[in-house]
Amino acid sequence: MTSALLTDKYELTMLAAALRDGTAHRRSSFEVFARRLPFGRRYGVVAGTARFVSQLAQFRFDDAALASLDFLDSATLQWLADYEFRGDIDGYPEGELYFPESPVLSVHGTFAECVVLETLALSIFNHDSAIASAAARMVSAAGGRPLIEMGSRRTHEQAAVAAARAAYLAGFTGTSNLQAQRSYGVPALGTSAHAFTLLHTGQGDELAAFRAQVEALGVGTTLLVDTYDITQGVANAVRAAGPELGAVRIDSGDLGVLAHQVRTQLDSLGAPGTRIVVSGDLDEYSIAGLGAAPVDVYGVGTSVVTGSGAPTASFVYKLVEVDGLPVAKRSSHKESHGGRKAALRVHKASGTAVEEVVYPVSCRPEVDGRVLTVPLVRSGTPVFDFALDAARARVTAGLGSLPWDGLKLSRGEPAIGTRLVNP
Amino acid sequence: MTSALLTDKYELTMLAAALRDGTAHRRSSFEVFARRLPFGRRYGVVAGTARFVSQLAQFRFDDAALASLDFLDSATLQWLADYEFRGDIDGYPEGELYFPESPVLSVHGTFAECVVLETLALSIFNHDSAIASAAARMVSAAGGRPLIEMGSRRTHEQAAVAAARAAYLAGFTGTSNLQAQRSYGVPALGTSAHAFTLLHTGQGDELAAFRAQVEALGVGTTLLVDTYDITQGVANAVRAAGPELGAVRIDSGDLGVLAHQVRTQLDSLGAPGTRIVVSGDLDEYSIAGLGAAPVDVYGVGTSVVTGSGAPTASFVYKLVEVDGLPVAKRSSHKESHGGRKAALRVHKASGTAVEEVVYPVSCRPEVDGRVLTVPLVRSGTPVFDFALDAARARVTAGLGSLPWDGLKLSRGEPAIGTRLVNP
Repeated sequence: MTSALLTDKYELTMLAAALRDGTAHRRSSFEVFARRLPFGRRYGVVAGTARFVSQLAQFRFDDAALASLDFLDSATLQWLADYEFRGDIDGYPEGELYFPESPVLSVHGTFAECVVLETLALSIFNHDSAIASAAARMVSAAGGRPLIEMGSRRTHEQAAVAAARAAYLAGFTGTSNLQAQRSYGVPALGTSAHAFTLLHTGQGDELAAFRAQVEALGVGTTLLVDTYDITQGVANAVRAAGPELGAVRIDSGDLGVLAHQVRTQLDSLGAPGTRIVVSGDLDEYSIAGLGAAPVDVYGVGTSVVTGSGAPTASFVYKLVEVDGLPVAKRSSHKESHGGRKAALRVHKASGTAVEEVVYPVSCRPEVDGRVLTVPLVRSGTPVFDFALDAARARVTAGLGSLPWDGLKLSRGEPAIGTRLVNP
Repeated sequence: MTSALLTDKYELTMLAAALRDGTAHRRSSFEVFARRLPFGRRYGVVAGTARFVSQLAQFRFDDAALASLDFLDSATLQWLADYEFRGDIDGYPEGELYFPESPVLSVHGTFAECVVLETLALSIFNHDSAIASAAARMVSAAGGRPLIEMGSRRTHEQAAVAAARAAYLAGFTGTSNLQAQRSYGVPALGTSAHAFTLLHTGQGDELAAFRAQVEALGVGTTLLVDTYDITQGVANAVRAAGPELGAVRIDSGDLGVLAHQVRTQLDSLGAPGTRIVVSGDLDEYSIAGLGAAPVDVYGVGTSVVTGSGAPTASFVYKLVEVDGLPVAKRSSHKESHGGRKAALRVHKASGTAVEEVVYPVSCRPEVDGRVLTVPLVRSGTPVFDFALDAARARVTAGLGSLPWDGLKLSRGEPAIGTRLVNP
């Protein structure tokens, strides 16, 4: 299935007009950046780069796609029939943190070949980075305890797959989503639902349900204990599985209070190794609030797949250079800084990040820093290793490098400032 | 591509356990409903029904999918290999309004064949209904003026296609998204971006850009006038296209003030028929706030595709009946009402809605009302006409039937109450 129609109509009408007056072939650079972070956020996490680059190969206009574009002239249709991206792309590796004005992606080629990628690039970066940025806050709030992404049912069915990937990239342990395992190797995890217990109504009820689950999945499984009464549920769980029971899940009520009660009960039943999984409308704040409770695993749904209040990352895709000359919009409130740019991050000797420096590619400032901009695509061919594990390691390193205030969950300013170096 | 792996792992481990103890074959009914509307919302719009039913046919476990399910036993894998949904589905037609506890979808069959559909059903209904519900508020705020959905770049690339459909279903005029036109026949509309004007830097700039666009697309096109200076932009636009220019678009600044200025300028230039399109972070509140401004078309992006503060609809999929007996969770805060249900809506003679009545299917109450629950699928085969135009008409009728308070944008209670009739 082509991804080429996941595109706004105006990209193609602009293309038609530019082909007609010859400007379509001007050498151009477009830049993906965010003028600001979501309100009160202190950092963002770059995600989507690998998905975008991997979709370039499918961004082709086949006959069926062309047939649906009856508003275009024949010269434009012919150009689209021959289209494949042959330009260069630079950008931040996935998993790097970003801040306002960070040039997370730069696309270079003719105006025509770059402009048609705008919608797809922004869809992917705005979605995936919003999820990864929210997920990283949850990972940091969880203080080393594992998190399972289980929000597939709260978002579009395909967005769910990308969301599972983005949450894993940001440090989650796994996902409930089977397609994310198949497509991206994200570990798939799972427990049980209330429906399974209810199914055994009149056939032995909760104890029968637990026995059936243990019979099928082994004593290492996770039993959901809050369908009827939690104390009875925990007792039934240990009765069904024995003290080697893997875990119990609590999905309702005051999770902090219940976790303490259930821990005490499990210990008294001789099951000190049985873990406690909690879920139910968790977000980074409630995760942090459970820090002192005997919780072993957090299951997170709605809040992570909807970006915890910031469902989109406000990235834009702006033309910044034409035939080697910077261009920029001059209208109010939406100024872009012209010219093709790169970025580096300055750190203290301790490793703590100090400043993001964005500079024209041709004049790197004399400052000691780690260059963030790397080649991703050359002449249409990917040249970067997009391994998900490496991206996960970058998130860990990035969070570890933030000044202390940067990890606060409360609303505040970006953790470090961005300095724009003029040519 | 199969949709069968767009599924939480636990659906399949529950299936494995239920197949093993024989409960998998119990006759079951699952119900999709929302315990509450998003905070402060007064109604919701059902969307997703057609997409869900159309995906049933692709919900098949092919060899490649089965190969990825290595955690399942061979009996379960064999069952999945033979799987197709052969049960019945009832529900609200798309475009109907819904309220707390409205049973918008009921799925009947064996436990096994129904439980595996949970994740996909919820993903689709939670996404599409969230978008349609937000979009309907914008349609109502726009007071008859057309709205264009242009938010593809702010959401996952496939979610964008479904969002365009949902917004159109709720009354938008069209979308920027080309795939939505191809897949669902949603009219695709478009203007131009700042990049097109910037592309003409040093080659005649804005006037050259406008001339190129008019040359390619005709004088009926929409010219974007705020790249540099709006007054100059409007002058250039009329100079390039003449007084027959279709429209100008303003994408920044105080849209109310600018719309008045631009209207006056267009009229003074002899272009009273040239329309004004406004865009830029519009939501239902800013749309309503522009009611007195000379705006002809609203372009809406981020807010509609992210549900304007409510990106998911909080639908759940609950087992309500097993072998003819009602079942319900008894744990705190999440009570479900057991038993297979249908619903009707009571209206005054004037047509104004008064009450939603949810009742056991077997005992319809003696009350005069319009039955909302219709057959959608019988023995696995769709039996309902899912035409999008009919769904649009239902939204219009539904909004027209609300009590006056129901259309208020401010936070409040559901527009009508829901009465649950006990068996």
